[in-house]
Amino acid sequence: MSSSHPRHADDGLAVRLAQTAEAIESLLDGLLSPDLLEGEIARPPRLVAAMRHGALGGGKRLRPFLTVESARLFGVGMPQALRAGAAVELLHCYSLVHDDLPAMDDDDTRRGRPTVHKAYDEGTAILAGDSLLTLAFDVMADAVTHPSGEVRAALVLALARAAGLGGMAGGQMLDLAAEGRFGSGQASVLGEAEIRQLQAMKTGALLMASVEIGALLGGAPESQLTALKRYGRALGAAFQVADDILDVEASPEQLGKATAKDQDKGKATLVAALGLDGAKRERDRLSEEAVAALAGFGAEADTLRAAARFAAERKS
Amino acid sequence: MSSSHPRHADDGLAVRLAQTAEAIESLLDGLLSPDLLEGEIARPPRLVAAMRHGALGGGKRLRPFLTVESARLFGVGMPQALRAGAAVELLHCYSLVHDDLPAMDDDDTRRGRPTVHKAYDEGTAILAGDSLLTLAFDVMADAVTHPSGEVRAALVLALARAAGLGGMAGGQMLDLAAEGRFGSGQASVLGEAEIRQLQAMKTGALLMASVEIGALLGGAPESQLTALKRYGRALGAAFQVADDILDVEASPEQLGKATAKDQDKGKATLVAALGLDGAKRERDRLSEEAVAALAGFGAEADTLRAAARFAAERKS
Repeated sequence: MSSSHPRHADDGLAVRLAQTAEAIESLLDGLLSPDLLEGEIARPPRLVAAMRHGALGGGKRLRPFLTVESARLFGVGMPQALRAGAAVELLHCYSLVHDDLPAMDDDDTRRGRPTVHKAYDEGTAILAGDSLLTLAFDVMADAVTHPSGEVRAALVLALARAAGLGGMAGGQMLDLAAEGRFGSGQASVLGEAEIRQLQAMKTGALLMASVEIGALLGGAPESQLTALKRYGRALGAAFQVADDILDVEASPEQLGKATAKDQDKGKATLVAALGLDGAKRERDRLSEEAVAALAGFGAEADTLRAAARFAAERKS
Repeated sequence: MSSSHPRHADDGLAVRLAQTAEAIESLLDGLLSPDLLEGEIARPPRLVAAMRHGALGGGKRLRPFLTVESARLFGVGMPQALRAGAAVELLHCYSLVHDDLPAMDDDDTRRGRPTVHKAYDEGTAILAGDSLLTLAFDVMADAVTHPSGEVRAALVLALARAAGLGGMAGGQMLDLAAEGRFGSGQASVLGEAEIRQLQAMKTGALLMASVEIGALLGGAPESQLTALKRYGRALGAAFQVADDILDVEASPEQLGKATAKDQDKGKATLVAALGLDGAKRERDRLSEEAVAALAGFGAEADTLRAAARFAAERKS
């Protein structure tokens, strides 16, 4: 496979992140156009608009960035890496649209704008989320994404496994339960191990899959695939502890959404379990664990190393 | 590919339907077990239970039946045909769980039992639907379903295209809009062409895909694939007109759900557009169109021919 990635060691992480975010935005804009794909009958304008509201105009696009950077290690062409990254991002956006619903986390704003069910309505938001999820698999399975059907099927499987009942959706289920939404109505005090499992499912599984998918695109040998999954798992965990810390320390303006919500809801976080200082130490440990997993790679993995530190140290 | 389908001309449609339904039930029971697949972290029991509530214990399993019978034309082994059929059924069940939600059709019962959000709660029902949808793609992409990655990717794509914004989800969006859920709050009077498009998306696309997926499993040549899609499209339309007619003529006990709902909601149906007699003539015409599409097949397609008549003449 030919590489369209010149490697500039002085390309800063911020520049690379911004470039990928711009390319992903443009790709999503095209995927969420009124144009029909073969086999589609009509795209209802209200549904397209709600999907665009949920997927365009914001976010760090960290997940597609991880896919692109992981794929880069194996010389994967940029168009393919970006398509697969866009599929991962569509899946991430679906999860935000559904998590924001009144029956779930009941959030009115996201990235400083009204959430989809606020800008439209609940029924439309449910369908927009469903359609973003479905489109993610459509994009992965389409021959444009990779010439090999074996690879495309592997991409679909990795994404589905990370997103489903044993991954992200299951993690959201555990989160609702921990908040006391069922049964007694009392929030549960989860132990550290339970919190880690919840977070590994709710956020970690998709972050890990973002890295894994880049490696699958590039036909990574088993040992490198395993190393990259270990990297992704540690990065995902670091990212989530950082999120718990930001909820305590950041302002709503920095995050574009309400803060101090976790504590108010009695939410299970590692800040609650380990204390603020303990959580920060754990965040840094996980970030170093992610970097250590890349020991078998050379300078070509420096951006991924920087991404692990960024995931831990981000301010929004 | 070896065939495990002995062809008995005297196998009645009802017997075949019942056999497939039993096999699908058993397969879904296994897929929705607490056992983790590789890559899954944990399966929260409440989520598994809600998914089982939404997917097990009922339904004619018409869609997997169409997949199995279409695959049979090409000698596809039963285990593969049933796996792909189970994926189609998971996707169908997801759509029922979400369509029943208060923000959508707001139904309390389904197949004579409480709907998932009634038996559990709205948040759990949303997640159960999401997870059934995701699992459908997981099953299609898994190597157990077909040895060829090319075929598995094609299965995923056919399913996603039928289910997404340009298919089933888009059709539900049009349906909510026609009921006057947005804007003026008035139900729209849709013309016959608009009703046909809505129904082709909401119900037709997945029924057609059920047939198409069987043909893809069997590596059908292009001409036969086209014929089977034409069959599936006509059958899907006949099925939906029959549904409109049943809503007027059947009792709630026959259907296991409320009837005369369409009229109460000012819902766009072909009964409203063509009158009851006109709708019955249209149903029969579509059923014959489906049969005619199979002209290139011999006696091996007799069960599909009978299925087209069944879809039109069913009493529940």
